[in-house]
Amino acid sequence: MSIMQLESYAGGQWVGPSGKTRKIFSAVTGEHIANAGSDSLDFQAVIDYAKQKGGPALRAMTFHDRARMLKALATYLNERRDPLYELSYKTGATLADSKIDIDGGIGTMFVYASKGRREMPDAHIYPDGDLEILSRNGTFLGQHYCTPLLGVAVHINAFNFPMWGMLEKLAPTLLAGVPAIVKPATSTSYLTEACVKMMIESGILPEGAVQLIMGGTGDLLDRLDCQDVVSFTGSANTASYLKSNDNILKNGVRFVAEQDSLNASVLGPDATPDTPEFDLFIKEASREMTTKAGQKCTAIRRMIVQQDRVQDVIDAMSARLAKTVIGDPTADGTRMGALASLDQKRDVLEKAAEIGSECTLAYGDQDALSLNGDDLDNGAFVSPMLFHCENPDTASIVHSTEAFGPVATVMGYRDLNHAIELMNKGGGSLVASVITNDPSVAQQLTMGAGAFHGRLYFNNRDSMKESTGHGSPLPHMVHGGPGRAGGGEELGGVRGVTHYMQRTAVQGSPDLLTAIGGTYVKGAKFIEPPAHPFTRTFNELQIGETVHTPSRKVTLEDIEHFAHFTGDTFYAHMDEEAAAANPFFPGRVAHGYLLLSFAAGLFVEPNPGPVLANTGLNDLSFQKPVSAGDEVRVSITVKRKTKRTDEYGEVRWHVNMFNQDDEQVAEYELLTMVAFERT
Amino acid sequence: MSIMQLESYAGGQWVGPSGKTRKIFSAVTGEHIANAGSDSLDFQAVIDYAKQKGGPALRAMTFHDRARMLKALATYLNERRDPLYELSYKTGATLADSKIDIDGGIGTMFVYASKGRREMPDAHIYPDGDLEILSRNGTFLGQHYCTPLLGVAVHINAFNFPMWGMLEKLAPTLLAGVPAIVKPATSTSYLTEACVKMMIESGILPEGAVQLIMGGTGDLLDRLDCQDVVSFTGSANTASYLKSNDNILKNGVRFVAEQDSLNASVLGPDATPDTPEFDLFIKEASREMTTKAGQKCTAIRRMIVQQDRVQDVIDAMSARLAKTVIGDPTADGTRMGALASLDQKRDVLEKAAEIGSECTLAYGDQDALSLNGDDLDNGAFVSPMLFHCENPDTASIVHSTEAFGPVATVMGYRDLNHAIELMNKGGGSLVASVITNDPSVAQQLTMGAGAFHGRLYFNNRDSMKESTGHGSPLPHMVHGGPGRAGGGEELGGVRGVTHYMQRTAVQGSPDLLTAIGGTYVKGAKFIEPPAHPFTRTFNELQIGETVHTPSRKVTLEDIEHFAHFTGDTFYAHMDEEAAAANPFFPGRVAHGYLLLSFAAGLFVEPNPGPVLANTGLNDLSFQKPVSAGDEVRVSITVKRKTKRTDEYGEVRWHVNMFNQDDEQVAEYELLTMVAFERT
Repeated sequence: MSIMQLESYAGGQWVGPSGKTRKIFSAVTGEHIANAGSDSLDFQAVIDYAKQKGGPALRAMTFHDRARMLKALATYLNERRDPLYELSYKTGATLADSKIDIDGGIGTMFVYASKGRREMPDAHIYPDGDLEILSRNGTFLGQHYCTPLLGVAVHINAFNFPMWGMLEKLAPTLLAGVPAIVKPATSTSYLTEACVKMMIESGILPEGAVQLIMGGTGDLLDRLDCQDVVSFTGSANTASYLKSNDNILKNGVRFVAEQDSLNASVLGPDATPDTPEFDLFIKEASREMTTKAGQKCTAIRRMIVQQDRVQDVIDAMSARLAKTVIGDPTADGTRMGALASLDQKRDVLEKAAEIGSECTLAYGDQDALSLNGDDLDNGAFVSPMLFHCENPDTASIVHSTEAFGPVATVMGYRDLNHAIELMNKGGGSLVASVITNDPSVAQQLTMGAGAFHGRLYFNNRDSMKESTGHGSPLPHMVHGGPGRAGGGEELGGVRGVTHYMQRTAVQGSPDLLTAIGGTYVKGAKFIEPPAHPFTRTFNELQIGETVHTPSRKVTLEDIEHFAHFTGDTFYAHMDEEAAAANPFFPGRVAHGYLLLSFAAGLFVEPNPGPVLANTGLNDLSFQKPVSAGDEVRVSITVKRKTKRTDEYGEVRWHVNMFNQDDEQVAEYELLTMVAFERT
Repeated sequence: MSIMQLESYAGGQWVGPSGKTRKIFSAVTGEHIANAGSDSLDFQAVIDYAKQKGGPALRAMTFHDRARMLKALATYLNERRDPLYELSYKTGATLADSKIDIDGGIGTMFVYASKGRREMPDAHIYPDGDLEILSRNGTFLGQHYCTPLLGVAVHINAFNFPMWGMLEKLAPTLLAGVPAIVKPATSTSYLTEACVKMMIESGILPEGAVQLIMGGTGDLLDRLDCQDVVSFTGSANTASYLKSNDNILKNGVRFVAEQDSLNASVLGPDATPDTPEFDLFIKEASREMTTKAGQKCTAIRRMIVQQDRVQDVIDAMSARLAKTVIGDPTADGTRMGALASLDQKRDVLEKAAEIGSECTLAYGDQDALSLNGDDLDNGAFVSPMLFHCENPDTASIVHSTEAFGPVATVMGYRDLNHAIELMNKGGGSLVASVITNDPSVAQQLTMGAGAFHGRLYFNNRDSMKESTGHGSPLPHMVHGGPGRAGGGEELGGVRGVTHYMQRTAVQGSPDLLTAIGGTYVKGAKFIEPPAHPFTRTFNELQIGETVHTPSRKVTLEDIEHFAHFTGDTFYAHMDEEAAAANPFFPGRVAHGYLLLSFAAGLFVEPNPGPVLANTGLNDLSFQKPVSAGDEVRVSITVKRKTKRTDEYGEVRWHVNMFNQDDEQVAEYELLTMVAFERT
């Protein structure tokens, strides 16, 4: 096979290795398979291309446009996974490992495509939180909005997930409307390069939205400013080095770090060896040790179990690990492949030796490693190694040094507080898991250890069939953790998108806020529609169009009638004396649902028209009781429009109900679906 | 007057000046008024005291407990403002300035006290965002929760707001449940010390919740870890220096920086000199220049106005500034006092001279400064200075150098895009204001400049009476900004509280999540209540208690009857053929409000009991149409309880409605008020 000359994608051109070129070797056979190098790139030109081409093109799209773009891209890649699996074997990954990387990355894009359309508006600006009333008469209000950063995202990825690592950063970045420069770790970058080639060939992305650097980043970081973001995944040492870059510190360049950490898994005190939780613990822990040959920043490094179950756990783990067939990931039967490179192998063996200096090796023998397959002598294979730490309170290496391979340590705890103490001794982690069926254990561990861990993964007999795994970051949940884990956050649904946006506190009058956000803000001027809004199509309806209904008197007969019809004969509606004794009511009052129903009767347009259905209602508050003899009227205002299909969209209406003294008695948001065309 | 020997409050003891002692002078008269010094404190003991005493005591309280504590503290200080005003004069502040600092700080505490009770649960853990469904059958779910950091917050405050600067940081920190170590800027620290003395004397705070350092911080920062936060307000240079502290970088200590910045104010193109907006612009800008003698990190430094209105603006500003009486803040008629120290005066004059090297001085003459009052020769007084920048595109000093006093520069823009470019040339700011009555100007400026500014303040004729001022950070809105402004965020309501908490992605089964969050999670086990839940008091009700109602058939007569009774004769309920043509309905269907009303009839308990009122409803979604002949039934589950007064609390119920095939047809959250006692 010929040697791959890996290409950067810079300024719209594919550029082969240049400057200092680095050789890349197969993790399995050790053969020289590729060359990479990018030192002589003009990095200012790369940044300018992103800012001048990619940024404006992405920002011209709405969140929904970009979500649809992500879906198209994910679909395109999903149909082209086979050549990616082929390349992935060379990184040492088994097919199962590759699916985590490749399918997992594509799946993350699909989730962001879906969340972008469901949880973000079809607009250019994202409202963060609720309106803040800053004045008595409501002429001056506040709303936080997020807008896309006007710079570029630099993604520095780790070698262990050449696909997922790129895609989990790209999805939120592109959804935010920010162009990216991707810099994969060199040793497995050929897989990343193949994927970027597919993405560019697809023609789905606007020019400048994604560029690729295959090698050194030169002076790239020195050229960033406060509109740029560096998202880094990798080791604590590299993160520290990059973070202390003068330009990054001085210019306030955002820096998000996600570092591997000393992740713990705790076996709950309730999980005796005869419980399903015990088996579950062993299964999860051994899977975490051997998947990707333990090269996951989320892998379990410290197994924290009740003192008198340490031996049970070591025995059960050893039995399971002994069944792990190690070798050529393409060979039949192989369950664990190689580390990504010989450098990694050297590092893992060194770190394991350090851990061995204060812990006892309970399972594993690198010298007796037998491999499944041929020509593997130069491959980066290591044996799983399970250590036992006898004195976890005085030990230090086991809580601070990570062997980034199939290596874990078992240690005993005396009681729950001791378990919490040991969990937290890692100095901050990406994830800690707890296998327990006891809700009070879950509650105590969350309060005691939550502050040290970016994710707490609980599992037990109820959830084990559907649980997603200790080591799997999900796009829905935040990935990152404090301290040793880098202090950053990625993913977490829309949270991850806002990392590439600026949150701005916007203050002003209701009319200005309505124009800025494209959502009706209470107090803004009403627009008189030319016809009843329910007769107007989705596109005809304008934000602010309002109907004021006539009044309807609520009679005692109405209340009695409604009560007997619906069965809701609550005393506040039926018994004057008892109602008057209630702190909320002056006497008998109308049912809230009677008022809602009358309101609908007041504003509805009965004939077929563009308004198709009332699909829901939000934030209803009953603010003042309505007694028999009171009159109610309603104003209903177009608040927000969101396209949902090719035929209709959602229209949210702001509804205010008043009594005969113009006092507001109720307020809510009404959800309807409205057609684009008249039928 | 004797010289004040300022005391630190460390480890529960008041400790006078020690180590290297610094002299503090009156800003007005220059006399030596105080000594401060803290170098010889044992900073590890200070941290330990916070972690061992303050942290556990605060964390034992709920958010509502801590909110009530803030309210008590704010009330206590509010009654003791007079001696604080007296001290504040010595900082150079007028009474109006002091009110911003003192009343503003107390007001911030009141807002947090209120938000803590209204927007946070009466619990120890704060749910962030919505439940995430991570599995098909709902046995494995995700929820983000924030828990208090287990460390200490170090607040490093600026000299210009000795009270507000402390209290705006303390309020969210204490509400989060985290103890604080306050380090005020030395030159005005006597006011901070007096306030902390009051707080400690009040006995309202638990021991260790607040400590005070009056002088150098020694090796304090080197002793922090990932559970600690440094919140810094001050200059960009000091922030850069502190941020690059080795320990802070290596141990992932959270660092929040809020730096003064080159804040801009833009006069909209619509705001010609004959509009109310023009006058408003002049008023706001001159007030920003002279309030606190321009010593506000949010003050307007760059006035960006249409090119042909530059002279109008300079004329109007000059006329207004000429009326500013400068001098002894205690003297009758004084509108502007002194800078905080002679060091500041020197610095401001130097920076103004730099700006003068590329801009023209349009108003102000330091040499001709005439002062109101006696014995002011050694005071730190400066003249307001207004510059005109003729070439803002080529100028650089005006966009990067801040004279932290009554100094601003007027510059012209050609069109809106040019205005945006000039706004953003400051490299990131805390706030930019725009005076405009044109919604499209507001919309364009937000999209073009939002990413560079932490706050955008719009004002016009509609909001001017109630607007809160360009330079006033409000507790409701985020305070902070990108780049030059430090890249941090403070305040912003509950957002500011979460800066002192760790957000953790918690995954697990519905039962475990229910126990962790104290809120019923769908899928968790139902609890069979011993009696109808509406007969049970607030305290008796347990999370998870559920009533399953019998079924009720919905007949065509019901639908017709309801339609004519309420007036809601929408065709989907009345006309089989037209309804069937609607994409959402199989034919005529029951009204959603009919279903809600029947549901109430099914679960209500009619007789007087602890449930007092239905106050609202959230997140109602109609999921499946109900046709005549269908039967509906409801399950209603206690979801969350929140104490509201001494007599009753809010109970939220999760309501599911099913049809005869056990398909869910609707779902919502019902809000009720429930008494503590049976009446």
